[in-house]
Amino acid sequence: MNYFPQVEKVAYEGPETKNMFAFRHYQADEMVMGKTMKEQLRFAVAYWHTMTQDGADPFGKPVNIRTWETSDPMETAKNRVEAFFELLVKLDVEYFCFHDVDIAPTGNSLEEFFANIDEITDLIQVKMKETGIKLLWNTANMFSDPRYTNGAASSNNAEVFAYAAAQVKKGLDISKKLGGENYVFWGGREGYESLLNTDMKLEQDNIARLFKMAIAYTKEIDHKVQFLIEPKPKEPTKHQYDFDAATAMAFLQKYDLTNDFKLNLEANHATLAGHTFEHELTVARCYDALGSIDANQGDMLLGWDTDEFPTNIYDTTLAMYEILENGGIAPGGINFDSKVRRSSFEMEDLLLAHIAGMDTFARGLKAAAKLKEDRFFDDLKEQRYASYQSGIGAKILDDQETLESLTEYALAHDDVRLESSHLEYVKSRLNDYLV
Amino acid sequence: MNYFPQVEKVAYEGPETKNMFAFRHYQADEMVMGKTMKEQLRFAVAYWHTMTQDGADPFGKPVNIRTWETSDPMETAKNRVEAFFELLVKLDVEYFCFHDVDIAPTGNSLEEFFANIDEITDLIQVKMKETGIKLLWNTANMFSDPRYTNGAASSNNAEVFAYAAAQVKKGLDISKKLGGENYVFWGGREGYESLLNTDMKLEQDNIARLFKMAIAYTKEIDHKVQFLIEPKPKEPTKHQYDFDAATAMAFLQKYDLTNDFKLNLEANHATLAGHTFEHELTVARCYDALGSIDANQGDMLLGWDTDEFPTNIYDTTLAMYEILENGGIAPGGINFDSKVRRSSFEMEDLLLAHIAGMDTFARGLKAAAKLKEDRFFDDLKEQRYASYQSGIGAKILDDQETLESLTEYALAHDDVRLESSHLEYVKSRLNDYLV
Amino acid sequence: MNYFPQVEKVAYEGPETKNMFAFRHYQADEMVMGKTMKEQLRFAVAYWHTMTQDGADPFGKPVNIRTWETSDPMETAKNRVEAFFELLVKLDVEYFCFHDVDIAPTGNSLEEFFANIDEITDLIQVKMKETGIKLLWNTANMFSDPRYTNGAASSNNAEVFAYAAAQVKKGLDISKKLGGENYVFWGGREGYESLLNTDMKLEQDNIARLFKMAIAYTKEIDHKVQFLIEPKPKEPTKHQYDFDAATAMAFLQKYDLTNDFKLNLEANHATLAGHTFEHELTVARCYDALGSIDANQGDMLLGWDTDEFPTNIYDTTLAMYEILENGGIAPGGINFDSKVRRSSFEMEDLLLAHIAGMDTFARGLKAAAKLKEDRFFDDLKEQRYASYQSGIGAKILDDQETLESLTEYALAHDDVRLESSHLEYVKSRLNDYLV
Amino acid sequence: MNYFPQVEKVAYEGPETKNMFAFRHYQADEMVMGKTMKEQLRFAVAYWHTMTQDGADPFGKPVNIRTWETSDPMETAKNRVEAFFELLVKLDVEYFCFHDVDIAPTGNSLEEFFANIDEITDLIQVKMKETGIKLLWNTANMFSDPRYTNGAASSNNAEVFAYAAAQVKKGLDISKKLGGENYVFWGGREGYESLLNTDMKLEQDNIARLFKMAIAYTKEIDHKVQFLIEPKPKEPTKHQYDFDAATAMAFLQKYDLTNDFKLNLEANHATLAGHTFEHELTVARCYDALGSIDANQGDMLLGWDTDEFPTNIYDTTLAMYEILENGGIAPGGINFDSKVRRSSFEMEDLLLAHIAGMDTFARGLKAAAKLKEDRFFDDLKEQRYASYQSGIGAKILDDQETLESLTEYALAHDDVRLESSHLEYVKSRLNDYLV
Repeated sequence: MNYFPQVEKVAYEGPETKNMFAFRHYQADEMVMGKTMKEQLRFAVAYWHTMTQDGADPFGKPVNIRTWETSDPMETAKNRVEAFFELLVKLDVEYFCFHDVDIAPTGNSLEEFFANIDEITDLIQVKMKETGIKLLWNTANMFSDPRYTNGAASSNNAEVFAYAAAQVKKGLDISKKLGGENYVFWGGREGYESLLNTDMKLEQDNIARLFKMAIAYTKEIDHKVQFLIEPKPKEPTKHQYDFDAATAMAFLQKYDLTNDFKLNLEANHATLAGHTFEHELTVARCYDALGSIDANQGDMLLGWDTDEFPTNIYDTTLAMYEILENGGIAPGGINFDSKVRRSSFEMEDLLLAHIAGMDTFARGLKAAAKLKEDRFFDDLKEQRYASYQSGIGAKILDDQETLESLTEYALAHDDVRLESSHLEYVKSRLNDYLV
Repeated sequence: MNYFPQVEKVAYEGPETKNMFAFRHYQADEMVMGKTMKEQLRFAVAYWHTMTQDGADPFGKPVNIRTWETSDPMETAKNRVEAFFELLVKLDVEYFCFHDVDIAPTGNSLEEFFANIDEITDLIQVKMKETGIKLLWNTANMFSDPRYTNGAASSNNAEVFAYAAAQVKKGLDISKKLGGENYVFWGGREGYESLLNTDMKLEQDNIARLFKMAIAYTKEIDHKVQFLIEPKPKEPTKHQYDFDAATAMAFLQKYDLTNDFKLNLEANHATLAGHTFEHELTVARCYDALGSIDANQGDMLLGWDTDEFPTNIYDTTLAMYEILENGGIAPGGINFDSKVRRSSFEMEDLLLAHIAGMDTFARGLKAAAKLKEDRFFDDLKEQRYASYQSGIGAKILDDQETLESLTEYALAHDDVRLESSHLEYVKSRLNDYLV
Repeated sequence: MNYFPQVEKVAYEGPETKNMFAFRHYQADEMVMGKTMKEQLRFAVAYWHTMTQDGADPFGKPVNIRTWETSDPMETAKNRVEAFFELLVKLDVEYFCFHDVDIAPTGNSLEEFFANIDEITDLIQVKMKETGIKLLWNTANMFSDPRYTNGAASSNNAEVFAYAAAQVKKGLDISKKLGGENYVFWGGREGYESLLNTDMKLEQDNIARLFKMAIAYTKEIDHKVQFLIEPKPKEPTKHQYDFDAATAMAFLQKYDLTNDFKLNLEANHATLAGHTFEHELTVARCYDALGSIDANQGDMLLGWDTDEFPTNIYDTTLAMYEILENGGIAPGGINFDSKVRRSSFEMEDLLLAHIAGMDTFARGLKAAAKLKEDRFFDDLKEQRYASYQSGIGAKILDDQETLESLTEYALAHDDVRLESSHLEYVKSRLNDYLV
Repeated sequence: MNYFPQVEKVAYEGPETKNMFAFRHYQADEMVMGKTMKEQLRFAVAYWHTMTQDGADPFGKPVNIRTWETSDPMETAKNRVEAFFELLVKLDVEYFCFHDVDIAPTGNSLEEFFANIDEITDLIQVKMKETGIKLLWNTANMFSDPRYTNGAASSNNAEVFAYAAAQVKKGLDISKKLGGENYVFWGGREGYESLLNTDMKLEQDNIARLFKMAIAYTKEIDHKVQFLIEPKPKEPTKHQYDFDAATAMAFLQKYDLTNDFKLNLEANHATLAGHTFEHELTVARCYDALGSIDANQGDMLLGWDTDEFPTNIYDTTLAMYEILENGGIAPGGINFDSKVRRSSFEMEDLLLAHIAGMDTFARGLKAAAKLKEDRFFDDLKEQRYASYQSGIGAKILDDQETLESLTEYALAHDDVRLESSHLEYVKSRLNDYLV
């Protein structure tokens, strides 16, 4: 079947095209800073929103028209695999990612669920071979089912912990089966609804326990995979333990997990935590923990996850700049954890929305590369921190100074002169790169 | 001189009193959970707002009437010492705290500033002996002066770093001189105005450098003091590196500073970071890093630090519960980092506001003690996490389980039943403790 | 059938009771300011959350156990009527309210939907007679169905407008049939998802058109009913036109609707709009438009509607004070538009949660009455605005002054002295009323 | 004296220039949609931030270097006039605006203040004649002085009302003297610090009283001027009565002031109120009340007024689109109510920041014009609302339908089909206009 008959293949046609189903900025093989755009961007599509989101919201019913839907869950699941790979191929996207429950129905027992997963991943495996498309990451959904009401590893109920562990084991098994490059934990319910009845320490200890079991298991099955945790401050729970990048790093350090875990950062989660996306990326880089990114954007005036397809060129430019600074995002990638607006309920909106996101990141990449080539930020910072290149500044960086020696220095040099940052000029100049 | 002629000594008169200058709830020698209220609460008054805040705001001029003001800065500084100790004695507060610039004029050079500090701390020393009042903590103001526009230890200008180091050295010298129990760093400008021109890694490395110099210096002068950092997410800078408790712990772990540093947590900083105060206290306890608290409250609908005197009995009850769980707050204390509303500009408002704050915390302490004595939260949590006391739960806590063994268990026990949290009932019952 | 076997009737047992299914503060016939508590509070239960909310959230499936559920929608609807009136009787609540789709399945056509409504309202009518319980308000759900994706009266599609009009007509017909005292419009989708494709003026004109048709129709069928609109700033749409009380008043004035419409204010909607609940009530009172209230509370740190049962005694005290100032809330009432937390998924939580809400409002009423009787706020304000009682102030209020005459006065009296508000003292004293 | 020796005149040099003191996008005489850029944009500089802001913030002292400062207030005031007109001429800005206290020292009495104003406005008058620069608006600062702690017209103290009235009279006198085109009220303290001690109705009545006196006075002195009020939700007060555009319209309608008052909308005030700037402009247009704009931008992650110079091209494009839709902004204008960042403390930053703002608005104007010329939004909306052009939709707009007639229609047409909005595509296409 042909799920996306609107187009054979989405082609680059340039900014002037009137063809809705064409790239206006993304050109897979265009070279940018020594790599093709495709290599730089490592795009992935997430099953989560694209294949299973139905358009319901807390005040409204499902609206999305999805031609793969049938009355039989397994048939629907198989149709989705077909449709998904059709979409990936038409968009020329190299990677994908999924939650276990996205790809296979949970059935009536854990055993049946696992059997369903096996059947669907066999099908996926065939598709991967056919198309060359690769698995960026997979994960276990440990938040939607009622048993996870109070958390998964952090649940107050030990049987829930066990169930979660089983899902993780299966997740790692299919990661190995499909050659997954990363494995993600998003702790949607690992947090609290109310602090009044919560033992935060026990809950966090238990999350760390599950992570250590996962590390041990990958060694046992000899599967090299990069573990990622995905910070989000709240929603669905009132508070999530992986609040933001820094909070996640506090946790990883406390439990000695920094060797195996990096961060999967999402733009909309950043803003919900009160940060810009580029801030979170920078924090991760400071801890050498930038793993992968969930590409979307939020609405700064709304207090929940809107998961919009990225269309803001400021955001994608600054994000891509951080990725270039990081020497690229591999083995992570840029996956669209984005959902179409509720009023974009047609099948063709899935094409249009991904094109929009890919074009916006392509613009961001090109702008970031130009900023890098012009040394726009490099020169700015080099000049700004020049005082640390010599004299007292260099000695401070060499750890040769003490409070006493610096006091002596300061008493003799207490008339410090700063230089203007000219920030307004800097911001205005930045605009000229967003073309 | 008598700066607060309204009252000889603020006495406990009970809730029915019409005397504005009396405690209605705080009774210093009332026993609560084995200690006097005074011992439990360890109140301190901060010089910062109480003695030096003038009532100006970004749109308005100073309004506060302060009878210690003169045209001569040193005379004013000396008057403040008199007035401050009069206030402390009349309120029967045992501790105080200050920034260097609060107590002494900065003069025309660093040398002059230090001389002024010496002169004023001599006077303070006399007052301390006379009254038995002690120094909870002192700190260096490294954010108000123009030289700190771009930060102190995190400044792009190495000479600023040196100047900051000199202030810290002096701060530690007077800490030793006055027997300070803690030393605080609040990084008001240790953050960024714009990420575009900021080298976050260098800046954070430098903050850690300064902290290590401070630790080294206290060893050299043989002064045992608990170092504290005070998280705040933003304001005055767009982003402050010590965003919240968890972020601060990430930093302290990264730079191996956890042995010497704990956290000084403030209620209003918590809410600006998107957390409740009790959340921040709990996070600190999980890291064994609850050091001291800045007592105030914010306005949840305003996006800046309002630093109101604490009057919300929910907040003080839950805060005091965490402190009781912590086995007390010593060597820290509860200092009022609170400022009177702009319309409370009279001298007597300083008395009234502290009485309000102390009464509210006294109510919180009594409510928390009753919650503890009734095992209200203890029973709730014991029952809620009971599954970890035996069976599979106990084995998980003993680290005897693996993904494989838990998968086996889960396959056989996949019909998990949760119990209702009855959260509405819990919250309603909690109200009955707030008396 | 007995849906709530936990209790025969929820009785008042006082604050010391250990019986979870008893009122600890609400005593229906206790006299407060000349009326019984029941008359003052005019409690109502809303079908919406209590009977039809399933516990799903954007990241999780339904969790609520509801023993009235069957596989047949009409049977379920009938069971709900039974269960609902059992709950109302057991709680001794005098009023109820509902959306059309809450009580009856929408079926396969509008005709079938209307027939279902007729059948169920016949049943409700019987129950009302049996129990004496009355209809506070009903409304039409014009936001959940996919046809309302872009709004109802504000839809870009005229056929949707027609469909909405039909639902409103039916709503008014059943209002007359059941003797409804108010009729509510909540414009869940009357707003925009994106301003880019929105004609705000046309959309608001159309909303006014629908309102005028509704007024005309009630005259035609000779049904006296108070119309209410319910402000909410956002969610589900990015922006809702009835943002807050003031915005709603701008709209009502513009379209000359103030004679027929008042406001139905909700605590959680107030906070989402950046206001306290008491602020919204006060604004409504200034416009003589306080109609009814949706009682719940939000989480000030979360950016979405949490619709928690009210448990904060500050909020209920200040809300009840405004209602007392208003001379009561009739013909409106206090309806619980509250939903149990997701972890409170048992049937008995419906009892416990309403008891919690009713007790909290009872406490609020008693505290507010005491504040009124003591003239706590009255004296405070009388003294504060005293300057308008005589002299130049009285002349200003009598509109006898001009810019010229006041300039003359000011030139002669430019040394104005203010008095301190002693706000900290006021807030601390307020605490003593919350007992 | 030459205050801005960096440049003789800021010239347009195009986007490639490396000259910091040149326009890269603003070209005064470039024709855009039938007018010159200068005519379309009607730029003004506000004295407020540009001439009197010192760079202090709640945690830091003044930092700005301003070469017009002297120890004598009147000499400083005169220097400022010189510097201001030099700046306006060099930037080729046609309009200016000011608060009374910005231009003249308040002295020791109201009489002296007025005399100072007279002297300085004489000087300004000369400068205006010399340069052809015109007064966009002036206003009275009724919020900075301690007497305004509790408001101006809304003060609890009648003598404060009188003082405010005197300032307004003087403001209108100088408006006439200088040919001002608009007169602004910004109610910085017209709101409340605490609702507990506030009589909202009396306070709002009094604000309306002052406005009516002002209208009466302009008639008396025969001065045609457009009155403007400037919505802001909060800061400095906890709540300001002119919360946002809609709230202001509710007030103006209630007090029958819509004939004389329009709105002066500010971008940063919009976002503080939870709205986009374009939303506020659209609301104003719906009420035919778009008066003038304060151009700046806020930081969406900060909860206070940052008043940054506008550099976001999305915002300026959408704002300019609304202005074009409005048929221009005259007699209002686009005035920069923006302040340089604290780290941009040099004199030259005043030039750089205004250039940045003017360039960003020039880009916005050009993008908006292209959107208009391409009928980008016009076509989108025409198609989207097509159902109202004929059939049932047209009848609804003609007010020919009733609930009954529409019910009949709906029963026959209950299978409504919506069309996708393709919002992602729309947003992506919009990016191509931002060049």
